[in-house]
Amino acid sequence: MKVWTFGDRVPGPVVRVRVGDTVRASITNKTKMPHSIDFHAARIAPNRAFRDVAPGETFGFEFEATTPGVFMYHCGTAPVVHHIANGMYGMIIVEPEGGLAPVDRELAFVQSDFYVSDTPGMPADDAKLMSGIPDVVAFNGYAAQYKDTPIQVERGETIRAFVLAAGPNTWSAFHVVGTIFDRAWQDGNPANEQVGNQTLNLAASQGSIAEFRLDEEGIYPFVTHDFTNAAKGAVGLLRTSGAQGTMSH
Amino acid sequence: MKVWTFGDRVPGPVVRVRVGDTVRASITNKTKMPHSIDFHAARIAPNRAFRDVAPGETFGFEFEATTPGVFMYHCGTAPVVHHIANGMYGMIIVEPEGGLAPVDRELAFVQSDFYVSDTPGMPADDAKLMSGIPDVVAFNGYAAQYKDTPIQVERGETIRAFVLAAGPNTWSAFHVVGTIFDRAWQDGNPANEQVGNQTLNLAASQGSIAEFRLDEEGIYPFVTHDFTNAAKGAVGLLRTSGAQGTMSH
Amino acid sequence: MKVWTFGDRVPGPVVRVRVGDTVRASITNKTKMPHSIDFHAARIAPNRAFRDVAPGETFGFEFEATTPGVFMYHCGTAPVVHHIANGMYGMIIVEPEGGLAPVDRELAFVQSDFYVSDTPGMPADDAKLMSGIPDVVAFNGYAAQYKDTPIQVERGETIRAFVLAAGPNTWSAFHVVGTIFDRAWQDGNPANEQVGNQTLNLAASQGSIAEFRLDEEGIYPFVTHDFTNAAKGAVGLLRTSGAQGTMSH
Repeated sequence: MKVWTFGDRVPGPVVRVRVGDTVRASITNKTKMPHSIDFHAARIAPNRAFRDVAPGETFGFEFEATTPGVFMYHCGTAPVVHHIANGMYGMIIVEPEGGLAPVDRELAFVQSDFYVSDTPGMPADDAKLMSGIPDVVAFNGYAAQYKDTPIQVERGETIRAFVLAAGPNTWSAFHVVGTIFDRAWQDGNPANEQVGNQTLNLAASQGSIAEFRLDEEGIYPFVTHDFTNAAKGAVGLLRTSGAQGTMSH
Repeated sequence: MKVWTFGDRVPGPVVRVRVGDTVRASITNKTKMPHSIDFHAARIAPNRAFRDVAPGETFGFEFEATTPGVFMYHCGTAPVVHHIANGMYGMIIVEPEGGLAPVDRELAFVQSDFYVSDTPGMPADDAKLMSGIPDVVAFNGYAAQYKDTPIQVERGETIRAFVLAAGPNTWSAFHVVGTIFDRAWQDGNPANEQVGNQTLNLAASQGSIAEFRLDEEGIYPFVTHDFTNAAKGAVGLLRTSGAQGTMSH
Repeated sequence: MKVWTFGDRVPGPVVRVRVGDTVRASITNKTKMPHSIDFHAARIAPNRAFRDVAPGETFGFEFEATTPGVFMYHCGTAPVVHHIANGMYGMIIVEPEGGLAPVDRELAFVQSDFYVSDTPGMPADDAKLMSGIPDVVAFNGYAAQYKDTPIQVERGETIRAFVLAAGPNTWSAFHVVGTIFDRAWQDGNPANEQVGNQTLNLAASQGSIAEFRLDEEGIYPFVTHDFTNAAKGAVGLLRTSGAQGTMSH
């Protein structure tokens, strides 16, 4: 399908800052329609900062990161649902003051849903989009990419996953097979800690930080556990470096 | 569409009480079919208090408000799904003992979904209702009403939003563009506080209290962030009195 | 419909252990296709422990229960969505060390969704399953079974409900009419306590423990409050032994 992008990729690049940082955003619109950028991490007037940027125009604004979390950014130009459905979204991580505690490995997963036109090369199909029934649900923009190419990790290391349910529509039931989250912070804020979760429950546009370990050498699938959406592509594999064999899922 | 109502409006009126209050409910059924009222804030025998009230009958009961929160009330007459889909629901706020802390402004939003018959003037379409795919999703009963007529607020004031996902089916991903919730209380109970949320994740029949400020003069959209449902009407605008210009969304 | 089962029932049997216990699982595959068992309560290599078991084969593994909660188990053989949709799931309760506090009554509810073929006696219909729109949503495998045969309880006793949203797809908005949950533990972990909830918000594969009482003699329906799914079977009744009359819902 044809996608609309921030920086030629879906999702857009992960942005990472700390509380207290001044974030300077600038977009140059190289397309033939208006676009914009809406950061959920900002406390700012949308009609000023998230305003439409005309074709050929460059526009920038800045904001102070006040609140730790895993936030969504996306194009906020009307009709917003099309700009999100066509790929204009990403994750901005705001670390607490002083930074997040060190871990051995960090991973970032943006779950999103796609409504593919029957005509190749077209943007999202509007009728499908209005039904809310996606053709594809993916982590980081490609169906099952980490099933085809597992993410290599190490047994016993501490892993921090930044997870964002970007939608436009689907909630995430993010789950890693074979482990339990030691802690999870709703919307990525350390004050919202839960422990011992098997699954994250993320509304469209919610984020989370989940920390876990994989205790044995092995292959650990991760999915959204509403399994029709996993079957549509929201599935991947974590593989420890000492793992043997294969695993379908 | 034809609606069935509490007090000639969809949603019904907001009821507001405090823990310790005795709530006296009375309904007079002016329609030709049985109806009833089920308060989620009550601890009471449903077959006695929420019983069907016959056409022409008046029936009352009382209960003590024991638990602070943002609760749903709705018609509980079978088939319940039709009575909710046709408009018989509303919000009852139970403040903690001593009352909620003062804020500058309070707003109440009931999100609900509609399944409109192809024949004008009819109640909800059953086939659409069973599909769970709504035609319209609205705050306070009318699609995009606060986009057409923004809610006027003041820059910097403290705003408390009471939010209820009434369904019959849709969850809410309630989000205010351009700000972050300073605190949010799941089901409206102060013991369930989270901080720094970008989005509320509300199941059908769940409520919340979210508090926030708008730091700059401006126009701030609010939506359910499953954007197909925003496109179906669950979108509005908050406009500070000093804001300039317009904003589409 | 034809179902695939653990132990000739849908859902499979409730397994109950305590933190610190060694859980020994063994399955004998009496069918003509591969199956497996994936315990969300285990920290273990999926490719070793949750591996496919061939027709006729017996396979066992063990794990230590490390984390209290209400966890899902299910067949993890590809395509997983079919194995879940056809009935291969259940609940494993892991009590904290020292056990859960005593209550008067415990109940276990597994909510799941079914996609019934138009041809009787067939497994789940794939097209319906991919749409995510179920025909039937049930507690413990049969639509409306506890509406037809209410669960008898006692007025005023303490009731603990173990609830699992098994999916494959639907979230649960678990609600008991006529009461409020005194406490609820997301994923069944005591560290994740909320109080005063009207409704649980459970993603597919999430569990919870909710405790409540029924203060008056009466008939108390319970539902998932996305009411199209209640209408499809996710409804039941709790009836105190001194209750009079009947209640439809």
